[in-house]
Amino acid sequence: MSFRDDGAEALEWAASYLERVRELPVLAQVEPGEIRRALPESPPEAGEPFSAVLRDLDEVLLPGITHWQHPGFFAYFATTGSEPGILAELLAATLNVTQILWRASPAATELELVTMDWLAQLLGLPREWHGHIEDTASTSTLAALAAARQAFPGRVVLCSEQAHSSVEKAARLLGLAVQKIPADHEFRMRTEDLHDLEGACALVATVGTTSSTSVDPVAELAEICEREHVWLHVDAAYAGSAMVCPEFRWAWEGIERADSVVVNPHKWLFTPVDCSALWTRRPDDLHAAMTLVPEYLRTGDEDALNLSEYGPALGRRFRALKLWAVLRCYGREGLQERIREAVRLAELFEGWVREAPGWEVVAPRPFSVVCFRREGSDEENADLLERVNASGEAFLSHTALDGRYVLRLAIGNARTTEEDVRRAWDVLRREAR
Amino acid sequence: MSFRDDGAEALEWAASYLERVRELPVLAQVEPGEIRRALPESPPEAGEPFSAVLRDLDEVLLPGITHWQHPGFFAYFATTGSEPGILAELLAATLNVTQILWRASPAATELELVTMDWLAQLLGLPREWHGHIEDTASTSTLAALAAARQAFPGRVVLCSEQAHSSVEKAARLLGLAVQKIPADHEFRMRTEDLHDLEGACALVATVGTTSSTSVDPVAELAEICEREHVWLHVDAAYAGSAMVCPEFRWAWEGIERADSVVVNPHKWLFTPVDCSALWTRRPDDLHAAMTLVPEYLRTGDEDALNLSEYGPALGRRFRALKLWAVLRCYGREGLQERIREAVRLAELFEGWVREAPGWEVVAPRPFSVVCFRREGSDEENADLLERVNASGEAFLSHTALDGRYVLRLAIGNARTTEEDVRRAWDVLRREAR
Repeated sequence: MSFRDDGAEALEWAASYLERVRELPVLAQVEPGEIRRALPESPPEAGEPFSAVLRDLDEVLLPGITHWQHPGFFAYFATTGSEPGILAELLAATLNVTQILWRASPAATELELVTMDWLAQLLGLPREWHGHIEDTASTSTLAALAAARQAFPGRVVLCSEQAHSSVEKAARLLGLAVQKIPADHEFRMRTEDLHDLEGACALVATVGTTSSTSVDPVAELAEICEREHVWLHVDAAYAGSAMVCPEFRWAWEGIERADSVVVNPHKWLFTPVDCSALWTRRPDDLHAAMTLVPEYLRTGDEDALNLSEYGPALGRRFRALKLWAVLRCYGREGLQERIREAVRLAELFEGWVREAPGWEVVAPRPFSVVCFRREGSDEENADLLERVNASGEAFLSHTALDGRYVLRLAIGNARTTEEDVRRAWDVLRREAR
Repeated sequence: MSFRDDGAEALEWAASYLERVRELPVLAQVEPGEIRRALPESPPEAGEPFSAVLRDLDEVLLPGITHWQHPGFFAYFATTGSEPGILAELLAATLNVTQILWRASPAATELELVTMDWLAQLLGLPREWHGHIEDTASTSTLAALAAARQAFPGRVVLCSEQAHSSVEKAARLLGLAVQKIPADHEFRMRTEDLHDLEGACALVATVGTTSSTSVDPVAELAEICEREHVWLHVDAAYAGSAMVCPEFRWAWEGIERADSVVVNPHKWLFTPVDCSALWTRRPDDLHAAMTLVPEYLRTGDEDALNLSEYGPALGRRFRALKLWAVLRCYGREGLQERIREAVRLAELFEGWVREAPGWEVVAPRPFSVVCFRREGSDEENADLLERVNASGEAFLSHTALDGRYVLRLAIGNARTTEEDVRRAWDVLRREAR
């Protein structure tokens, strides 16, 4: 078979998958080990046709896939692998550029800089910042904290008790201690005790925490960090995408005074995973923490920027292509429209929960995630969640807030409609009975 | 336009690119900033059709792409984004699975475990090891050294002066010191002074160094590390793929006593970037160094393995799909055939250099990379390289060995034929006159 024929089959598989994904159970209904046992124990001796891969994708793997593209996916943060993003990944794999340094593909580096500049404009960030793309927020935060460790003598990272686990993971890798600051009744970092930051090199503020999407007070924290000479890293991995709409920018007021910011377009900006955008207004510190150019990579391109000197990995995939394709094919208006629709749907769902007897909303809802629970014990809520997810009709996840088990409905999949949200609510009420 | 129509256009672009890549200049012939200036300063307000992306890919970006898929690409380590791998990336982006934990897509986790088991079998590694996929060797080595730091009290990493810069970068991130061990006249780590490893937590042996593909003595180093209670990490990012052919396994004899090994299928195993395979025989130490499961990710799936608990990133792309597709579509025989052909071509080129007056081979050639130079100064060799690369007919890179500037011809692109190697040699001789 030729690449054209195999490709046509793969493309047809993809198109048909996106059409029928709505009919599949959202959460994979398999036991641990089930898929593994269905696969051959050893690789083939002779090559097989690509059609065999497609066949096994359907017959063996698909039952074990949890469908992130399903409009009933409301767990964690719902995401979208949009059509332009998917096709751009095909193109990036075709080019197979490994961006170890500028000359290894000048267009990959320069498109990344341009796309990050475009995204900065869309989100209202200062255009003079340095921006580049990492795989995930775990890596972006690792890079930011390495720069903070480079810039300041302290060896402690401060963050709210609601901060993402990636902060703690990055700090552990870097040999930094983490001090967790209590959150207030709306799950925002309390600033009352933050007057003395002795020993700290960084403070991580979260705009849109993972549990409840609460928002730490960025402007106030920037003030404190500036005064105390501490690096301010803003984790807006989820909510940063909402800043494409000016009406949400209250949530990171003061952002221009942050030292670094991470936003994940693969979360809520319709870009296939992985694509994490990292900006810093202190590129020299990031560069100093990350640069290391051996002889075999030294070239005469003095004016060229090597993005591998700003992050942990030397080999870099051509991730800018998909982000560029998404920003172009949606345009500012298209992005705004879909962000606003997700928030509208979340608001709608929140209203239904508020009005329903026996249900309660347990956290403010600044964006598109609703935290709620059914009256009764934690166990009853956990059981309810398992029943809902086992139905295959919707997939939600949970968290703990104020020591209680809480359900989360996260809207972010561009294919999700009001009807899908209504259906999730129907399933929740049905399974609660 | 529909996804099917846009997809057909993207696919046609990809197929035609692979057909005509041979006619394009290998190294992009642009100045820093040239591509950037050709791109619009701001993103569009309204969405554009995907065909506009394809048009600009051709007209604006392509002149700035260095063509890693070109059969005349002989720089760094030559790679191949093979057809099954490219199409699998289309499928992975379509599914858009984010493998944060097992239930987020059981098939993604289990296919990764199976594929890593297959690859272990192909390379002759112990099947009982834990294996998973990271993006690049930089990350794999970071994870391995974090595990070493967890397992042993020392805070020094030992490696040869020929080790890859990613070892130093990982150590710096982890707060570990690096002690470089001198290499012998064939660029292998000298073991004479390695009797006392006081203070070391890890030793990195390289099988196929980046400069000359030299091979550190793994068995002897394993012996020493075992005795001294030091973690042995083997960096076989490039040469590990060759182990699919038993006749190359002398190069990592004793590998079963290593604590961790990294092999990059995106280098010499026909898998599009990024795909770095990391194995360890001490999964508990790696797990202890990396695990961190917050409440919102705790599930009842006790028997399930969360691969994010074995590496730095929480969000994980479905990278196993492309490796699985490659292993299936090539089969053991297909992989062996192409590895052997690359080595044969390198041997051929080495012979031509040896026989040509005024040229010398400057390092042993265990695999598919030839280190050589033209008689004359370092400057003359550097100028020669620039002229060859400016011709657009071949792209080579350089290194320094014994303090001298050295040219490198790396064979690894599956599309490279004897004629392409002959052409590179012709260009070298032409430009040397």
